[in-house]
Amino acid sequence: MKAVRVGILGAGGFTGQELIRIFARHPQVKLCYATSSDYAGKTIAEIFPALASPKTEALIFSAHPQEISDIPELDAVLLATPDDVSLKWVPQLLAAGYRVIDLSGAFRIKDPLLFQEFYGLTHNAPEVLAESVYGLTELYREKIAQAHLVANPGCYPTAALLPLYAYHELIDFSQPVIIDAKSGTSGAGGRREKDSLGYSTVYENFRAYKTAKHQHTPELMQELNRFSGQSVRVRFTPHLLPLYRGILCTSYARLKADATTALCHAVAADFANREHFLRYRQDPDRVELRAVQHTNFCDFAHWCDEKNGLIEIVSAIDNLMKGAAGQAVQNLNLMFGFPEAMGVNGVV
Amino acid sequence: MKAVRVGILGAGGFTGQELIRIFARHPQVKLCYATSSDYAGKTIAEIFPALASPKTEALIFSAHPQEISDIPELDAVLLATPDDVSLKWVPQLLAAGYRVIDLSGAFRIKDPLLFQEFYGLTHNAPEVLAESVYGLTELYREKIAQAHLVANPGCYPTAALLPLYAYHELIDFSQPVIIDAKSGTSGAGGRREKDSLGYSTVYENFRAYKTAKHQHTPELMQELNRFSGQSVRVRFTPHLLPLYRGILCTSYARLKADATTALCHAVAADFANREHFLRYRQDPDRVELRAVQHTNFCDFAHWCDEKNGLIEIVSAIDNLMKGAAGQAVQNLNLMFGFPEAMGVNGVV
Amino acid sequence: MKAVRVGILGAGGFTGQELIRIFARHPQVKLCYATSSDYAGKTIAEIFPALASPKTEALIFSAHPQEISDIPELDAVLLATPDDVSLKWVPQLLAAGYRVIDLSGAFRIKDPLLFQEFYGLTHNAPEVLAESVYGLTELYREKIAQAHLVANPGCYPTAALLPLYAYHELIDFSQPVIIDAKSGTSGAGGRREKDSLGYSTVYENFRAYKTAKHQHTPELMQELNRFSGQSVRVRFTPHLLPLYRGILCTSYARLKADATTALCHAVAADFANREHFLRYRQDPDRVELRAVQHTNFCDFAHWCDEKNGLIEIVSAIDNLMKGAAGQAVQNLNLMFGFPEAMGVNGVV
Amino acid sequence: MKAVRVGILGAGGFTGQELIRIFARHPQVKLCYATSSDYAGKTIAEIFPALASPKTEALIFSAHPQEISDIPELDAVLLATPDDVSLKWVPQLLAAGYRVIDLSGAFRIKDPLLFQEFYGLTHNAPEVLAESVYGLTELYREKIAQAHLVANPGCYPTAALLPLYAYHELIDFSQPVIIDAKSGTSGAGGRREKDSLGYSTVYENFRAYKTAKHQHTPELMQELNRFSGQSVRVRFTPHLLPLYRGILCTSYARLKADATTALCHAVAADFANREHFLRYRQDPDRVELRAVQHTNFCDFAHWCDEKNGLIEIVSAIDNLMKGAAGQAVQNLNLMFGFPEAMGVNGVV
Repeated sequence: MKAVRVGILGAGGFTGQELIRIFARHPQVKLCYATSSDYAGKTIAEIFPALASPKTEALIFSAHPQEISDIPELDAVLLATPDDVSLKWVPQLLAAGYRVIDLSGAFRIKDPLLFQEFYGLTHNAPEVLAESVYGLTELYREKIAQAHLVANPGCYPTAALLPLYAYHELIDFSQPVIIDAKSGTSGAGGRREKDSLGYSTVYENFRAYKTAKHQHTPELMQELNRFSGQSVRVRFTPHLLPLYRGILCTSYARLKADATTALCHAVAADFANREHFLRYRQDPDRVELRAVQHTNFCDFAHWCDEKNGLIEIVSAIDNLMKGAAGQAVQNLNLMFGFPEAMGVNGVV
Repeated sequence: MKAVRVGILGAGGFTGQELIRIFARHPQVKLCYATSSDYAGKTIAEIFPALASPKTEALIFSAHPQEISDIPELDAVLLATPDDVSLKWVPQLLAAGYRVIDLSGAFRIKDPLLFQEFYGLTHNAPEVLAESVYGLTELYREKIAQAHLVANPGCYPTAALLPLYAYHELIDFSQPVIIDAKSGTSGAGGRREKDSLGYSTVYENFRAYKTAKHQHTPELMQELNRFSGQSVRVRFTPHLLPLYRGILCTSYARLKADATTALCHAVAADFANREHFLRYRQDPDRVELRAVQHTNFCDFAHWCDEKNGLIEIVSAIDNLMKGAAGQAVQNLNLMFGFPEAMGVNGVV
Repeated sequence: MKAVRVGILGAGGFTGQELIRIFARHPQVKLCYATSSDYAGKTIAEIFPALASPKTEALIFSAHPQEISDIPELDAVLLATPDDVSLKWVPQLLAAGYRVIDLSGAFRIKDPLLFQEFYGLTHNAPEVLAESVYGLTELYREKIAQAHLVANPGCYPTAALLPLYAYHELIDFSQPVIIDAKSGTSGAGGRREKDSLGYSTVYENFRAYKTAKHQHTPELMQELNRFSGQSVRVRFTPHLLPLYRGILCTSYARLKADATTALCHAVAADFANREHFLRYRQDPDRVELRAVQHTNFCDFAHWCDEKNGLIEIVSAIDNLMKGAAGQAVQNLNLMFGFPEAMGVNGVV
Repeated sequence: MKAVRVGILGAGGFTGQELIRIFARHPQVKLCYATSSDYAGKTIAEIFPALASPKTEALIFSAHPQEISDIPELDAVLLATPDDVSLKWVPQLLAAGYRVIDLSGAFRIKDPLLFQEFYGLTHNAPEVLAESVYGLTELYREKIAQAHLVANPGCYPTAALLPLYAYHELIDFSQPVIIDAKSGTSGAGGRREKDSLGYSTVYENFRAYKTAKHQHTPELMQELNRFSGQSVRVRFTPHLLPLYRGILCTSYARLKADATTALCHAVAADFANREHFLRYRQDPDRVELRAVQHTNFCDFAHWCDEKNGLIEIVSAIDNLMKGAAGQAVQNLNLMFGFPEAMGVNGVV
């Protein structure tokens, strides 16, 4: 089979590096183009010595394109760019015939007004938005396989939604769902670090951030509404961990009256059995960042608090893998007919 | 005024060190006796060079006492010992006329059966338990001042209960209270570290622990019941942060129907105005461990989610100070008639 | 005795905060003025909640002065400012009659050409430079007591020079002295963090920096020349540790032919006996950052490698205390006739 | 080509895990046997969820063998065991016809008396020791390819020796070589962590250890003697970094009189050009742990201090890869005729 030729816009950031890492080993993908405003003209090996690998190390970063004709012929383009950059480039890329996976938030929220409220940007391509496919792989495989544009999910929604989906038939969604999320610094901001991600600010520290309004809230609501079939209220609070990689979510929801420990266990085990990248642990204390870092797995477990009528779900992912680059490659595999786990199985 | 002569049983652990640190500067307390099975015969300066201070550095650690007569004449004894050690020694100390502050969990839970269920120990001194005063300073000042035995609160309950008390008149306690707590390693285990607190296990990692059953749950319930006047259901989950000092709690409760943002603000500001060590922040994102480490403050803030009928409360303390040694000294000050903040004001 | 009235220029940086922390407890100093371009108009308690202390918390940061008349009447001014800012203000402050302690590098190097080579700045006040007193307290007490301008030493030179002085009579200074230094991030850059001090760059990482030419090299040479009486060659390499506070130096020098283990021990013990803030450890493995953090101590030890004719000296300080603010307060105490350790003894 | 069947004794430790990680992807090696006293009966996936990979995850840990017949038929055995365990098993394994790579220190030091002095163990198999091949791959390729027993080098010697070899013709080995080494916790102790590697002891701390006598010193001397052709004096001091993975060595040596910056550059570039896993950086500040973690590379650079007649060499490796498991696989590849970089190229 001929290798798929891919390009990355914004390849110098945390997520871009992770894509490079994966493509260094993917047997069916050839990374042909990678842009970076900071690193244009340098090779991958020079800039990221820890990523030096025979397949990719000699590739030279290109400057960010000025116009669409600056981009070479490719089978697919992945955008690891800020929201406004994606908003500008995705429609042009689609028009030029590229298949696109966008890792920003620009094409995830179907409601342009909600997008505007939470992202502070006017959506200039509502018709493209309408046909984008939300790339939560385990839930939307068929659509993803056919998509021209996949909107790759946010890291927090990925970590929270997959296990909530596992238990969704047992949850009373008329009551608010509480998602208490904790992320390392790579999930909370980009490579161009602001003061708030300086070593002296982060080390030995911990706090909540964007308590009132985080841009992943509407994404969580949109998907919970979709699989619950009702309008779900969400209280989502992210916190910043003094570490680099990983997200752990502790989610609390009301159990339906007839939900039991045995039923919770059954639906969780069943979902995990069907899904390669979902791993169900019987003990929530065993779900930890260490177990998922550098992998594409989502580990999860629950505590069924029958007495209080609550289910507590603990889930963990590597925000750069399953929460970004790894899931993007799952989607890429689907779009080009490869086995879904190709290149992202095991340690990456 | 004559200095109060105090002794510490278990002075070599994390909390014991913190007491030593405070007493190095307390103008009315003289540390006369400090036991440590590991360090007997060595001076404080030898064992804890970072605590070397003119007032305390020459004190020589004693071996743990074999019998009550091994303990010198003192005005007060603080126990920074495991639960079973406190259970054995507190009754003897009281009988010998010492005033006692116990920092273990042995005398906090008024119901001996609940104590047995969560601590795995039979309570051998129910009559002593009956007269112990729970040492949450801000709530029980008068009783503490008169007490012969103060049961110093656990670190998690201190962090969670103080702000919940601030808002208690606005909370609908018929619904479960969710306390999602995150602690550094010094709050999650003692100096004799088990494998689970080894560097290679903790660094770059994060997880929940004792999800099903943490021994601070009955303490939380007992006190919530007390100030709410009803039987409160609590879902309490601690998590282990890759850092040393500090606890941050994110608590979620149902608001009463008539509670508003303005009322939440009013009760919080009012409580903080009355209480020296409570600091109310208007923005939950400003409550952080950095702000309270090495201090006796409890910082807190809330997000009033009127739409969802929820209040989210974020609170932070230094688990070794306000969560242990600092609060113990507040209580000691009350017991001996000193200003409550003496020796624990500002950075310690 | 009337309290000394002091001001801090540049009080919002790491060193400035440390001075504030110390003055919160110093019984003879009143902090009356503190400038910060970022925090002007806010109180210390607002900006640094962890430093809230009755004596200082209500002080309002002033804007940086425009002219000398903006500065109130004070007994002393401490500058925790960049080199160029000190270069500009110190002469004016002296002319206006203030006694000055400058914590920058602007007045340490007696040779203006060497200063220019290593700092990239032309020295505009050579006559002021000529009368500045190098503030390595233990070596220059008398001069400091009389000084109008104290040039407070760099953090690396303080950590390396004090123990080298202890052994200087046993070292053959005709051979190069190698100083392999390791510092936390607070010693390697200021609060306005550059990318190189971002969390994602520093955590789990370690490297040398400024290998070829660090601005503390001429300061090391100047002082080694002074106490050895000859022209000493120095190889100085700093490294960046993934932590916040502390410097550990491992220094290697040639022993004189007649130096022995016993003699090395004798001179070290003798120096430490005379000096309150020097602590000699017999085992180099016991010299560690933990033991000196938040204190003004310099711990040191040596390994006398008689077979190879080498002495290896390990020394540790808290770069913000003995390496900056703590030593500045030692000097301030000398200048105003207070006991040298006042306010910086024990944990600070 | 038929896959090589390998087994690991001591597969549950840090190095054992790293071997498992590599074998999960090595195209010519099949991991058939892995012992662990702690994990016998459990699968790799259960114990190390982060290492779950199709090729290896179902393998069940065996108990440690009681006798040689407990070990299945294999082409090669790797021992990631303590020194005394290797001392006991290696001779038996060789006698039974297995090819062996021993990652302990038991067969590295050719002089049994020196071994005894530094390891505290009597060498019971001097004839086996005599035929063991020191596995510093870049220096001893031919012998390794033929060896029945490869003694895989220590992590510190690997990090220090490779660059010293690069420059060895320019160094005056009549003068002491100073090796100031800094290692993360995984290089300084095993999985069964002692108190000294607890989180509360390591975080925010830094110190030297085994200053007087580290067991890698004779290994360093043996090899320096070998390639310099003289008896070299070594001052070796390891330090413990508050991080997990990586060793950085800063080495200082006397330059020969005719050595110049240009010559130093030439020999370094030449060595790196010939060697796949050696990467020469022109700027010592660019040698950092981040660049080599999870890879088999050794990065190095130098500062030629012509004025002082010194060369300073900075080198970095991942102690678990090039310093242990990665180099072992290089050696395994040589022994079985595979390309040397197979399975350890790029990120692992």
